[in-house]
Amino acid sequence: MYEKKGKKPAKNPVRAGSKPAHEKSDGSKPASNQRVLTSLEELGEFGLINRLTERFNPVSPSTIKGVGDDAAVIDFSMGSATVTIGASSDSTVCLVSTDLMVEGIHFDMTYTPLRHLGYKSVAINASDIAAMNGTPRQITVSMAISSRYTAEALEEIYEGIRLACQKYQIDLVGGDTSSSISGLVISVTVIGSAKKQDVVYRSGAKPGDLICVTGDLGSAYIGLLLLEREKKVFQANPVMQPELTGFDYQIGRMLKPEARTDITLLLEGIGVQPTSMIDISDGLASEALHLCKSSDTGCRIYEDKIPIDPQTKEIAMEFKLIPSVAALSGGEDYELLFTIKQVDYEKIKEVAGITVIGHMTDRAEGKMMVTPDGKEVEITAQGWKAF
Amino acid sequence: MYEKKGKKPAKNPVRAGSKPAHEKSDGSKPASNQRVLTSLEELGEFGLINRLTERFNPVSPSTIKGVGDDAAVIDFSMGSATVTIGASSDSTVCLVSTDLMVEGIHFDMTYTPLRHLGYKSVAINASDIAAMNGTPRQITVSMAISSRYTAEALEEIYEGIRLACQKYQIDLVGGDTSSSISGLVISVTVIGSAKKQDVVYRSGAKPGDLICVTGDLGSAYIGLLLLEREKKVFQANPVMQPELTGFDYQIGRMLKPEARTDITLLLEGIGVQPTSMIDISDGLASEALHLCKSSDTGCRIYEDKIPIDPQTKEIAMEFKLIPSVAALSGGEDYELLFTIKQVDYEKIKEVAGITVIGHMTDRAEGKMMVTPDGKEVEITAQGWKAF
Repeated sequence: MYEKKGKKPAKNPVRAGSKPAHEKSDGSKPASNQRVLTSLEELGEFGLINRLTERFNPVSPSTIKGVGDDAAVIDFSMGSATVTIGASSDSTVCLVSTDLMVEGIHFDMTYTPLRHLGYKSVAINASDIAAMNGTPRQITVSMAISSRYTAEALEEIYEGIRLACQKYQIDLVGGDTSSSISGLVISVTVIGSAKKQDVVYRSGAKPGDLICVTGDLGSAYIGLLLLEREKKVFQANPVMQPELTGFDYQIGRMLKPEARTDITLLLEGIGVQPTSMIDISDGLASEALHLCKSSDTGCRIYEDKIPIDPQTKEIAMEFKLIPSVAALSGGEDYELLFTIKQVDYEKIKEVAGITVIGHMTDRAEGKMMVTPDGKEVEITAQGWKAF
Repeated sequence: MYEKKGKKPAKNPVRAGSKPAHEKSDGSKPASNQRVLTSLEELGEFGLINRLTERFNPVSPSTIKGVGDDAAVIDFSMGSATVTIGASSDSTVCLVSTDLMVEGIHFDMTYTPLRHLGYKSVAINASDIAAMNGTPRQITVSMAISSRYTAEALEEIYEGIRLACQKYQIDLVGGDTSSSISGLVISVTVIGSAKKQDVVYRSGAKPGDLICVTGDLGSAYIGLLLLEREKKVFQANPVMQPELTGFDYQIGRMLKPEARTDITLLLEGIGVQPTSMIDISDGLASEALHLCKSSDTGCRIYEDKIPIDPQTKEIAMEFKLIPSVAALSGGEDYELLFTIKQVDYEKIKEVAGITVIGHMTDRAEGKMMVTPDGKEVEITAQGWKAF
C-alpha cells in the first residue's frame, strides 16, 4: 500500500484491493491516519502509466524495447540456444503494440458507424507499427460487448476490421469475445515486423535534425467538432437534418483514419532513415514533446509551416479556433512526426506530402513554437486526455 | 447485411451499423420485411467466433497458424528478404494469444482481491502459451476502468501483474489504460517463443494416442461455488463471517490459478513431445472435444481416471454434485490436456502430476466417457459460456 500525502482524496474512492469476502467488516469509522487515495483524474494518463510500470524490469534477453515507444521491439534471435549466422542487425524483429477503444470515451455510438469503428481499431494500431518504421502483419481483436448489440452489429464491426486488414495486408490471428455489463470495448494488439537496423525509436533525434510531418493536421479534430455540433442540433430537435454535406474530408479523418504505412516504403525508396519517429494520435504538441523527452532535446516548430487543409482552416475559424491549435492539440490525425539528419534535406524537400516544420535543438533551448511574427511560445501538451 | 430466417428476434436488438448522424431519421414504422436480428446468446461464443472470422483469409507468409488454437504461430523468417541459413525448423517462432477479463462476467469484485485479479490475468495468458509447448516472454496489458477505482486500486492490480510476471519470467512491454463508463475490463496479450519443430497444435493427435492431464481438475469450480455461497450468506446477513477457512486449495485454484509452464520443460526432459495439446479453461469435456475436432478423432475418457483432489470430491458431494462433473464442466483449472504416442507411455507413467485418462479413437467411434461400471456416455460441452 502507498501513502500519498498532500493529495486531495478522490470523489468516490474505493479501497485498493476491494474487500474480499473473507475480510472482516468491522464497521469502524475511518481513523485520522487513513490512507488518502488518489483519483485517476489527478494523475492523468501518462502519470498513471509511469506509476504503474516503474516497478517492472525486463528480464528476457529478447525484449529489446519495452514500455515507452509506439511499439515494443522483440528479437527472438537474442538469447536463443541457436545463434543464427550473421543475424545481429539483419535479423527480423517483432514489433508489438496495443490500443483500446471504449464506448463513451473514444467513440460515440450516436455518430460512429460500426464498420468505421472496426476499421479505425485496426488503422490506429497499424499506425503504431508505421511509427517504428515497421510493417504491420497480424492482429488480435478482443471485444467486450453488451447484449444490446446483435450478432449483425458485431459482424458490421468485423467487416470494418476485415476491410482494414485487406487494406493493410494484416492477418487476424486471434481474439476473445465476451459480453459486458454495459457498452462496447475493443482491444486490438498488432504484431509487426522490421529488420532490426531499420527500427526507428522516439529517442534517436539529435540537435539540428529536421522535424518533418506527413499529410496535414487538425482535420480529424475539426471533424469531431462538426459531429458533436450536429449531434447537439439533433438532440435539441430530432426532425432537423444534420448538415454534414461538404465536410467529407474532416469527418472521414475522424471516423475512418488511415495509417501511414506507405511512408516506410517511401522513405526507404529515397534512402532516408528517420532518426526518431512517433505517430500523431494526441496532437502535434504532445507528440513533439515525446520526441524531445525521449531524445533529450529541445525543438523549434514554425507555426506557419504546420500543414493544415485550407477548408479545415476555414471551419476552424467558424468555430473561433486558431487553426494551428487544432493541429497542435487536436489529435487523431494518425500522421507521422519524424526527424531526419540535415544532410537528408535534399532527398526529402521535393517529396509531396512531407513537410519540414522545424528542427531539434539542445535541450536547454526549450521546446518552442515560433509564431509568424517571430515570437517564441513554449509548447505544452494539451492533447487528448484518456481520463 | 445478413438475413436470418427462422430465428427469433433478440430482446433488445440495435440495428447493425447504428445510426450515423447523417442518416435520415424518418420515423417510419418497421416494414413487414424487416431484417430479423440475432442475439449474441443465440449463437454462443464459438458460433459467434466462427461467424465473425470465417471471411478472414491470412495473406502474410509469416502467419503459420491463425485463429483456431490456443495461440497464433508467427514465423518472421518466412517470406523475409534475407533467408537465414538452416532456419527451416530450428528457427524460433513467435506465439501470440489474448484473453479478456470483464467485471461482472469473468470476475466478481465482491470476492476477488485486485492483486489476484492482476495475477490471474497474466497466468491465464501464460497458460495459452504453455498449451502450445512454448515459453511466455512478453505481455501487453490494456485496461478500461471506471473512475470509481483509485490509482491505488489500479496499483494493486499491477502489483498482481508484476508478481505473475516475476513468477513466469515475463516482461511487460506495453499497454493502454482508459477510463470506462462502468466496470473494469482487462485485456492481456501474451507473446511467447518456441522452436518451430517443438510447437504442439490441437490438431496432431492420432487414434490410439494416450490422453494425459496435468494436476487435478474441478477444484477451481468448487472454489467458485464456495465463494458464491458465502457471498449469498453475506448479502443476506452482513454481520455473518464467511466460512472459507480450510478451503484454501479450492479458493486459490479459482482466484489465483497458475499456468503449467513447467510442463514444457518436464516433457522436454523426459523426451516426450505431445501430439496435441490444449489448456483446460472451459472444463475437460469442452477441451477434449476441441482436440478431437481439430485432430479429427474420437476419444475414450475413463471417468475413474480423472484426477480430482480428495477434499474437492468431498465438497462436491456436499453441493450434491458428482465430482467428475465439476472436472468435466467446471473449467478454470488451467491444467494441460495433451496426447502422446503409445510408445511414450513408459516415459510418462511414473511422472508425478501427469495422469493418463484415456485414449484417442477413430472419429466414427464417437467422443465417449466410460463410467466405472463400463457404460459409455457421450461427452458434451457444458463448459463455461461467455454469453
